Order: sequence, then structure tokens, then C-alpha cells
Amino acid sequence: MASPALSHVPHLQTALSGPLHEIEARLLEEQSRIEAWLRSQWRQTPAPLYASVDLRNAGFKIAPVDTNLFPAGFNNLNPAFLPLCVQAFQAKMEQVCDTASQVLLIPEDHTRNLFYLESLATLHDIIEKAGYVVRIGSLREDLTAPATFDLPSGRSLVQEPLVRRGRRVGLADFDPCVIVLNNDLINGVPAILEDIEQMMFPPPALGWAHRLKSGHFSHYHEVACEFARLVDLDPWLINPLFRNCGELDLRDAEGKRCLEENVDKLLTDIRRKYDEYGINRPPFVVIKADAGTYGMAILSVRSAEEVRRLNRRQRTRLQSMKGGAPVTRLLLQEGVYSNETWGPEAAVAEPVVYMIDHFVVGGFYRVHTERGPDENLNAPGMHFEPLAFHESCNTPDRARDPDAEPNRFYTYGVIARLALLAAARELAEHREAR
Amino acid sequence: MASPALSHVPHLQTALSGPLHEIEARLLEEQSRIEAWLRSQWRQTPAPLYASVDLRNAGFKIAPVDTNLFPAGFNNLNPAFLPLCVQAFQAKMEQVCDTASQVLLIPEDHTRNLFYLESLATLHDIIEKAGYVVRIGSLREDLTAPATFDLPSGRSLVQEPLVRRGRRVGLADFDPCVIVLNNDLINGVPAILEDIEQMMFPPPALGWAHRLKSGHFSHYHEVACEFARLVDLDPWLINPLFRNCGELDLRDAEGKRCLEENVDKLLTDIRRKYDEYGINRPPFVVIKADAGTYGMAILSVRSAEEVRRLNRRQRTRLQSMKGGAPVTRLLLQEGVYSNETWGPEAAVAEPVVYMIDHFVVGGFYRVHTERGPDENLNAPGMHFEPLAFHESCNTPDRARDPDAEPNRFYTYGVIARLALLAAARELAEHREAR
Repeated sequence: MASPALSHVPHLQTALSGPLHEIEARLLEEQSRIEAWLRSQWRQTPAPLYASVDLRNAGFKIAPVDTNLFPAGFNNLNPAFLPLCVQAFQAKMEQVCDTASQVLLIPEDHTRNLFYLESLATLHDIIEKAGYVVRIGSLREDLTAPATFDLPSGRSLVQEPLVRRGRRVGLADFDPCVIVLNNDLINGVPAILEDIEQMMFPPPALGWAHRLKSGHFSHYHEVACEFARLVDLDPWLINPLFRNCGELDLRDAEGKRCLEENVDKLLTDIRRKYDEYGINRPPFVVIKADAGTYGMAILSVRSAEEVRRLNRRQRTRLQSMKGGAPVTRLLLQEGVYSNETWGPEAAVAEPVVYMIDHFVVGGFYRVHTERGPDENLNAPGMHFEPLAFHESCNTPDRARDPDAEPNRFYTYGVIARLALLAAARELAEHREAR
Repeated sequence: MASPALSHVPHLQTALSGPLHEIEARLLEEQSRIEAWLRSQWRQTPAPLYASVDLRNAGFKIAPVDTNLFPAGFNNLNPAFLPLCVQAFQAKMEQVCDTASQVLLIPEDHTRNLFYLESLATLHDIIEKAGYVVRIGSLREDLTAPATFDLPSGRSLVQEPLVRRGRRVGLADFDPCVIVLNNDLINGVPAILEDIEQMMFPPPALGWAHRLKSGHFSHYHEVACEFARLVDLDPWLINPLFRNCGELDLRDAEGKRCLEENVDKLLTDIRRKYDEYGINRPPFVVIKADAGTYGMAILSVRSAEEVRRLNRRQRTRLQSMKGGAPVTRLLLQEGVYSNETWGPEAAVAEPVVYMIDHFVVGGFYRVHTERGPDENLNAPGMHFEPLAFHESCNTPDRARDPDAEPNRFYTYGVIARLALLAAARELAEHREAR
């Protein structure tokens, strides 16, 4: 993975220039109403600590397809916006825990993934520059002494074994005020983090062991409908249709039939919208695990027939997960074409937007030369070039065209914040449930 | 005034490389303690809406010499940090008035000063991009209909007559939730702004009709002593000595004698510190009006004898003010050499740091080719080149030298925030007095 072409203005093209232009124009016209509405939403349901949202921009529609509440990839952001990250982190901490001064950062376990470690180093940097003492405590049980990792960027970071004392968790010589979780807890909340008295952001209940994508997208559906009413848009233009079919086992004939039926129904719904908007492309459905972030099991299909023809290996793959846990729930999501392309080779580009608190602090494009516009760009083993956003997402400019760069980035930031709001409602649900 | 050399990294030199290096090193070492202390200070005394602070960097000491609570010059900031301004404004408004959506901006009266109008347009932009409906209402009584101003930057702005309805102020067709004051109210609070029910930031009581520089620097003295204890520094290294001699009239023999005596005492105090630090330069004192921001009356003197020899014109000038109001109170401030220079001609450069809420959002250097290092760089009719800070002030980097750029900017940001804290204490005093 090359370093992002930072000095380079991303020269992205949108193949279809129809309705999206209208979406961008609506958002720009309604900017102050949108921001006032979002402010009122954050008052009711505060945003989680941070998030990254994968968007797909089809030209005629733009929608979030994945929301990660334990984001990595901070190293892919434009370093010019590091100050924005630092300031947003400061503002968030003053709100939620204003007397904190020592922060423990708990990362993912995969200590050999240099991309992840670079992101972790950037996150560490953000928290440190925000004025906190920050150290990294690992959940890996095989880590019994502090370990230093030297990174390709020239930075290094130290991970230390976690130590539990009563209802507090920390390091051997470090008792933090607050814990920042950057581990998606796919395998559940480990005992060492259970029932601790320190505040933890985000709360472990937002880990993948407790969270379902279908839950997120149910909330997103509500958010998109409310927002669409506010700005007078068809919600479908910002909302991916989806279905889930509960627990199933693809080794069963019944499980397979259920999946086929749901794929078929969803394709019919999408086709109806395509007909309404005169879109002459085949609809497709993305099948993925309903929990988990790593896209170990992602498949694009254009017909129920394709599901029927899945071989054993494909089915097994669809139901296997990072760490080997079996996937029993699948999400069927409307496939959104990615019609943003970059460079002379017209590589497919997918925007990923980062937020700290409810502030959009940057983003990057996953640029992929070997994938088609109907394929997922965050699949396992996938090679992509990160291309940092050149401009921020909070400086819309009404004096310019709706699809001028600052306005396109503003649109990304609005749609990403709608997904963030869905996550905020998940968080509120979890709080009420406690 | 040329546009700032934005793509240019300011190549500033500090003639003396002695103690300042130590100040910067201390601040860098103590960064997390400093930030924790500042956070606790903002909890006790929230920062005003915004401020700009003029710093003087003598190499051996660095100190604020003026704090402006109704700052202009926003147009001199690096446009790359506009997102930081927008985000800080959002964070502030959510804290102080989270249901507001319409903002009235009340500017200075001088509608012919294009530099000021460019700053006003930038401030308008910041508030608009933050997601507010913002309009500009003028205090000028001769403005009876909306007037459009076209600016050299290609932007234009509209100023409209203020309209009072009961205890609310607004425009003919605009009833704002909140008022942002960018007028220093040197001539007092006008009737149209008295006793209004809307929130006004900053409050009119922080206008120059109610505020004295000596009051500000008394608070700053306290802040500097507390801070110096925290980081174990001699407070003088960040604190300009000062004296004020109450009301006086320089046409009187008594008034002149009082001024001479105080200048002499202050020079003696400065000389004592210079001796302690082995500084072989003549101490000097800056005499300025104790209220007001425009530096109509600023004089540098190196001896009481110089005061004695002031001619009638100089004395008159020292006691005249913008708008013609007579100056009866003078502040005598330790002169701080400006030993930052820029470019091949070694032009004198003075940093000006901007804050929104307690966040440092940028700054610029006043670069002046025709002034000496012991002269004020913000004098009437003065010509300077603004040189925007290339980097932000919130990304200190301990892996680099204490005087590396991000660390120098961090130092500026810390000292500027100490002056902001002094202003926050003035604000608290005003609140208690109400």
C-alpha cells in the first residue's frame, strides 16, 4: 500500500451525472436547516466517540454501506487535518469526562498488521496531542511484557499487558481515568474488561458480539426517512434497501431456500426503484455477515439463481468469520454501484469518512484498480490505495457548483453523519437496556 | 498589504537562541500537565467567544502584549485552517446556546476599511459554514437600507440597519437567536444594544468602554505566576512587567512628573531582570492608552528623560484616541524585543494568535520591514505583511527539537491561551458584578 498522494487533488469522476447533482444541490441549499437538525439530534442522542463510514456513490444515489465504531485507517487521513482530529477529541473529552488526564488505549490483537499499527500510532498521536497521557494496553494474553513495534513510517509504539485491580483496569504502573476502545470485541467482552468502574469509549456493548448490521441499518432507515422529509428527497436516494433472514445454516436446504427467497424479494424491490428512476443497470445484492467488520464473507449476486449455484466452498466462506466463529446471520443489502473513478485507468473509488464525536474530521478513498463498480472494496486480502481527502468536509461553499470539491465532501460528511446518528441511536438503546 | 505567502513555510529566525529554547523545551515536556491544567481552568472560567493575542518573542522571553476580544484579521489566517475555525465555533455554540440557529453579527462601523471588511467576510463565512443562518447588522446610524460591499477577494457582503423590537434586536425581517459582537464598543454600549434579552458573545461589558489593559494584565500576572509554578519557570520569562499611573493629564506638570517617575521605576525593574539574565540590551518601556485597541497612541521610551522631552504634539498624540475620545489613563508596559525576523531583509515579525473558545485556530505574523525590534508593530497607518502560520498550534511533536515549527507554534498557542485565561477571568468578574 503506497502512501497517499497527499499533494494531489483527487480528480474523481462520477460516471452518471444525473440525480446526485440534485442531492448535492439540495443538501447545499438546506445546509443551515440540516446542521440545526443534526445539532438537535446530537442533543437527544450523543454521538459515539468515533466512527468511520463506508459510502458508495452511484451517481444517482449515495448511501452508507458499513459503519465501523472501532475504526482503523486513521493513518490514511490527510495529515493536514490532524489538528481537526486533535480539536474534536478535546471537545469530546471535555463533554464526556472533563477531569480525565490519563487515557488507556486498547487496540485490536493483530500485532503483525503494520497498516493497523500505523493507524494505532496515529490514534495514539491524536490523543497525546490533545493533551493526555496515553498508553496502550493489549488484550493479547500472550503479551506478558511491554513490546515495542517499529513501524514503516519511522514511528514506534509500545504495547503493554493489561493489569486488573479490583474494578479498575490499567497497566503495571498506570491507572488511567478513561479507556478508549479500538477493538471491535468480535469474540465478546473479555473478563478483564467486565464490570470495570472506569468509563470506556465506545462502550463494549457496541462491539460486534452485541451488534448487528441489520440493527444499524434499521436505525439508519428511520434516520434516512426523517432526514429525507426534512430536505424533501426520496429516502431511497440515500438509503440502501436491506433484508435479513434471521438465523440460518446454508448447509440446510431450508437455509438455502430462505436466502434465495430473500435475495429475490430484495432484487425485485431494487428493480422497482431502478425502473422509477430509469436506471438501466442490473440490480445486485450484497450478502454479508450481519456482525463483524472485516468482510471475511462478502458476496455480490444479481439473481436468486446465483445463490442456488453457490458451491460448498463459497457457502462455507460466507458463513466463516475472523477468528473462526461461525456466521449464523446474514445481511442482504442493496448493492450500490460505485461510480466514482480515479485516474486514467478509471479505478473504482469508494469514500470512507471519519468522525470524532459528531465532527467530520477527514476521510479517504479506497482506490482499487482490479475491482468492478459492483464489487465490495473492503474485502479480505484486498489491495487498495488510500487517497486522502484533499479538503475537509465542513466547508461547503454555496458560491460554487453543487459538485465542486468542498460541496461533494460536504455531501459525504452529511450522509456519513446520518449513519453516525443511527449508531448514536444504537448507543442510546444500549444505555436504556442497562 | 499583499496576500499572505500561504504556500510558504515561514522561515523565522530568532536572533537570541538562549533561554527561549528552554521555555519551549519545558512547555513540550509538560504538555499533558499544561493541557490538564488549562482544562481545569476553562471549567472554572469559560473562555470568551474569541480573541486574538499579540505576542512578542525576544528570544530570552515570550509574552503577550495585547489581547483583543473583538478580533479582526481573520482573513490573514491560513485558509487551510478554516475547518478548524468552523469546528471550534460549532463546539462553542453547542456549549453556550445549543438551540440557536440564526446569528446576527454586529461589526465595527468603519465600512471603508477593506482589510476589516475582508476579516468580517471571513468571520461571516466561519459562522455560515458552521451551519448557522448569519446576517450582518450595522450600528451605523447613517446606514438606513441594506448596503452591499464588494471586496478585493471577490466576495461581497451585505450590512443592514439594526432594528429593535422590545427587548430584542435584529433586522427588518430577521429575529436572531444570538448575537456575535465584533465591535469593541470603545464609545460605550449604544442604546439599541442595552438590556436586550438575546445572548450576546462576547458581552458588551468586555468592550473597551468598560475594560482596561491594566485590568487584563493584572489578571495575566496572576495567571503567569500560577502557570510558572506549574511548569517551574521564572514567571518573568512569560510576563511583561507593567505599571499604570491612574488618571493623568500630560498638560499638567504633575501628570508629566507622575509619568516620568513610573517610567523610571519600571525601567529599573526591567534592568534588574536583564542583569539577572545577563541581557546586554537597553530596557525600554511602551506607553499606551489603557483602553482601546487601535494603538493610536503608542510610544517606546528608554528613559524618563525621553518622557521629559516629549513635545506638545507627541503628548497630544499620546492622549488622543480613535473617535477623538481623550485618553486619561495610560499603561506603561515592559517593552519586549521582537527578535523574530523573516526573509533576507531580516524584517521584524510579531506573531498574532487567534482563538475561538479555548481552541487555538491559527495565527499570522505581522512582518514589517521598516520597524526596529523595539517598536510596536500594530501602530496607526502601519504597513505590515501578514504571513499566515503554516502549521497549527495544537500538534506539538516531542520527537522533534523544541524549536521545530510545530513546537514553536505550540509555545505560541500556550502563551496566547494564558492571555485568554486572563480575559476569561475578566469575563467572570463581569458576571459576578452583574
